[in-house]
Amino acid sequence: MTRTNTAIQQPTAGDNLEALFQPRSIAVVGASANTRSQGYEYVEGLVKFGFPGPIYPVNPKLDELLGLKAYPRLEAIPGPVDFVISAVPATAVFDLVEGAKAKGVKLIHFFTARFSETGRPDGAEAERELREKTKAAGIRVIGPNCMGLYYPKRRITIDPMFLDEPGSVGFLSQSGSHAFRLIGRGRNRGLQFSKVISYGNALDLNEVDFLKHFADDPDTNVIAAYIEGIRDGQRFFEALRYAAARKPVLVLKGGRTSAGHAAASSHTASLASEQNIWNIAVRQAGALEMGSLNELTDMLVAYECVGPARGPRVAVLGGAGGGTVEAADLCAEAGLEMPPIPQTIRESLRERLPYAWDWIGNPLDVSIMMGESNEMDILEMMAAHSIYDGIMLNFHVERALHRLGVDRLPAEAIDRMKRLGTANGKALMMIVEEPESRDESRLRGVLAARDQMAAAGIAIYPSIERATQIMGRYVRYEAQRRALG
Amino acid sequence: MTRTNTAIQQPTAGDNLEALFQPRSIAVVGASANTRSQGYEYVEGLVKFGFPGPIYPVNPKLDELLGLKAYPRLEAIPGPVDFVISAVPATAVFDLVEGAKAKGVKLIHFFTARFSETGRPDGAEAERELREKTKAAGIRVIGPNCMGLYYPKRRITIDPMFLDEPGSVGFLSQSGSHAFRLIGRGRNRGLQFSKVISYGNALDLNEVDFLKHFADDPDTNVIAAYIEGIRDGQRFFEALRYAAARKPVLVLKGGRTSAGHAAASSHTASLASEQNIWNIAVRQAGALEMGSLNELTDMLVAYECVGPARGPRVAVLGGAGGGTVEAADLCAEAGLEMPPIPQTIRESLRERLPYAWDWIGNPLDVSIMMGESNEMDILEMMAAHSIYDGIMLNFHVERALHRLGVDRLPAEAIDRMKRLGTANGKALMMIVEEPESRDESRLRGVLAARDQMAAAGIAIYPSIERATQIMGRYVRYEAQRRALG
Repeated sequence: MTRTNTAIQQPTAGDNLEALFQPRSIAVVGASANTRSQGYEYVEGLVKFGFPGPIYPVNPKLDELLGLKAYPRLEAIPGPVDFVISAVPATAVFDLVEGAKAKGVKLIHFFTARFSETGRPDGAEAERELREKTKAAGIRVIGPNCMGLYYPKRRITIDPMFLDEPGSVGFLSQSGSHAFRLIGRGRNRGLQFSKVISYGNALDLNEVDFLKHFADDPDTNVIAAYIEGIRDGQRFFEALRYAAARKPVLVLKGGRTSAGHAAASSHTASLASEQNIWNIAVRQAGALEMGSLNELTDMLVAYECVGPARGPRVAVLGGAGGGTVEAADLCAEAGLEMPPIPQTIRESLRERLPYAWDWIGNPLDVSIMMGESNEMDILEMMAAHSIYDGIMLNFHVERALHRLGVDRLPAEAIDRMKRLGTANGKALMMIVEEPESRDESRLRGVLAARDQMAAAGIAIYPSIERATQIMGRYVRYEAQRRALG
Repeated sequence: MTRTNTAIQQPTAGDNLEALFQPRSIAVVGASANTRSQGYEYVEGLVKFGFPGPIYPVNPKLDELLGLKAYPRLEAIPGPVDFVISAVPATAVFDLVEGAKAKGVKLIHFFTARFSETGRPDGAEAERELREKTKAAGIRVIGPNCMGLYYPKRRITIDPMFLDEPGSVGFLSQSGSHAFRLIGRGRNRGLQFSKVISYGNALDLNEVDFLKHFADDPDTNVIAAYIEGIRDGQRFFEALRYAAARKPVLVLKGGRTSAGHAAASSHTASLASEQNIWNIAVRQAGALEMGSLNELTDMLVAYECVGPARGPRVAVLGGAGGGTVEAADLCAEAGLEMPPIPQTIRESLRERLPYAWDWIGNPLDVSIMMGESNEMDILEMMAAHSIYDGIMLNFHVERALHRLGVDRLPAEAIDRMKRLGTANGKALMMIVEEPESRDESRLRGVLAARDQMAAAGIAIYPSIERATQIMGRYVRYEAQRRALG
């Protein structure tokens, strides 16, 4: 037998998580008829998503909710209950655990908050007691103080407004608001999720379990993590290495600074960690550290929509004039290269562009040329050439609409852009800045074009700074991952 | 007489520029009836802005344009012509200069391009000849290859869509597209301009003249410069020092990298400069270097809308949960400080917020509290306290609208936010991210709220990253300016 010296200690829940995440039935305890409450929205979400098993609203004050029969207590439910979502106040959780134990519940998600994150001794004590009681009852726990599970493939959601189509991003987030924001923003940019788990104070199931789960989850292609505190450094870094050996892992640490840490401790009661040690360990584990939720979103868009990260050599459509110069500076500062337009392409343009064939460069300045079609023709030649690894389009939608005299970009134009990447197996990024116009029809045109592009699976970035930074990091991280095999 | 050892060599046009910028009449040579052409838009802009003197469209093919009598040549115009805007092709400029000389024209702006920026010997030669001929004729020149002058107070504009209200930002831009973008984006964020000068290849009037002009211009409070190349390093840095001694000066260099330089040379034929020498010299001159047009825009919003930069100690409304932690990390990383909520404020909240008075912190996590009004009450107390220099509101407009059950933010809420800064003489920044929702009414609500805030003169930033970075740099640059006296 060959001895392996990189043996990974198996995290606790590991393979069993998937079974927990496929309950036969769900009870929402603390269900509410108040349409602005989370106790309503959990039920509404499950109904709207068409969760295939029974959904049981539990609240002694309700007879029914959204057409579902309501029950006064968990124990009053006739059938088995696998998964409980708790939206009751902190004072009611121990009764709930008693009932759950009696019903043979396997998993509870505590949306319920006001535990150790308050920084008060009684809150911390209640959390310790909750840990003991659930452990003794053999019930696994997500939370407390979190939004819980979004698993569109199994028709489980946190919010009725979320997209019900599954995708391949797995996100574990200690923060519920980060989960909401990533899902919400991601939707506008073509991101879809295998699962999102908001896990708050991590009383039981924690980052180690979820990393391991996503690492082995066949539906997950890229793992994103928002982490404020870790319980066990060694087990965490082992799980991180395990996951990063299998998939790209993007880690955003909340509480990197002492001020941030102070905020994190009153958010999810997380403990401090040494920033330097953290940085080195994350890098050594093979994961990529992110600096903000926007950067995390941008990088996920790279993984989901940009296409292959062959290398740093990009063909750039540079906006116009100063925008072209800016694109060049920002590409160079992000570690990208812009090989000049090959002579063969120039020669083939000599007749069609007598005034510009020898003058145009990379980035391509649109203000040098006349009309849209020349740009796309040249870009298609560049995209097909082996000297380029990717294409970046700094595309001024508003000006294009104005120039074309239309209020919607034609679908053929979107297709043609998309094919620049897909037809050549290359990375493609589109920069669509926020509309400058206050003119309603122009504004709608830009927003519609962006939606069309996102729907076509084109990666969209809101600024050239963000696009270039992400392209640079994406290419380098993928090169590093290839090098590590 | 006291001898001064920091005597500044007077830049050439200096004080005479203002006279050039107040022409009695304007001729647009190459005026066109094609509504998509610049030769149309210059005329349309002057008409729409109500330029108070005669406007003369010049084009042998036109009898009239927009109700104005057109002339076949400059010499056919009956009255005096002070300022000519040239939209003719490069081949026609020498005839134009002859005519302008005959008419006693004082200033020509050449929108006309295809000179040295083409990189071709004939283009460079034509530019040299144009310089000689205009100089011999005693005519000052803006350009060629640029968009020219936007001077709303004197009813002169580049584009009919620009805001006709004057403000106090002076912008000299070697790039026309950067001028357009800054004016367009600035409009949505409350920026208004004293003058914007897009000056392209800088054949005659250049960065030295414009810096000196804005330094002495009583209508200009802050100077922004986009520069690709400089003609004379020593005179430039003297002018920069002269300007920075009088006003904040924000400098964006196009062509900082060798790739960017290559792009700049085919844009405005600018020469390379050593980046390190540039950085040091800009800093020593007392100006502030910017990394992108977005950063420049953001910093101008600070100068125009944020209020006094007393120091780095901020009170932060931190979004919610993970957003609060992120705000804290990003503030700390931007060099800002977040002093804890003073005990006196805590004590005064003890009765009203029994569950949170000892738990809340700075940044203030809205998810800890119930309802909007508590947040604003606490922020008002913090804003009034001497321990804070500024207030940053990471304000989730979409969620607020949802929570309040309204589709427009009430005007009183906007006023109350605004007063956090004005009532206490402190810096105030509002972060309004792009709407996540695809719901049309929510989207409109967020855009409307942003417009309301901008109209109220509140500084708006599109992300917490951008807001914190700018607040940090704004505070440090102003401290440096105060230290230099």
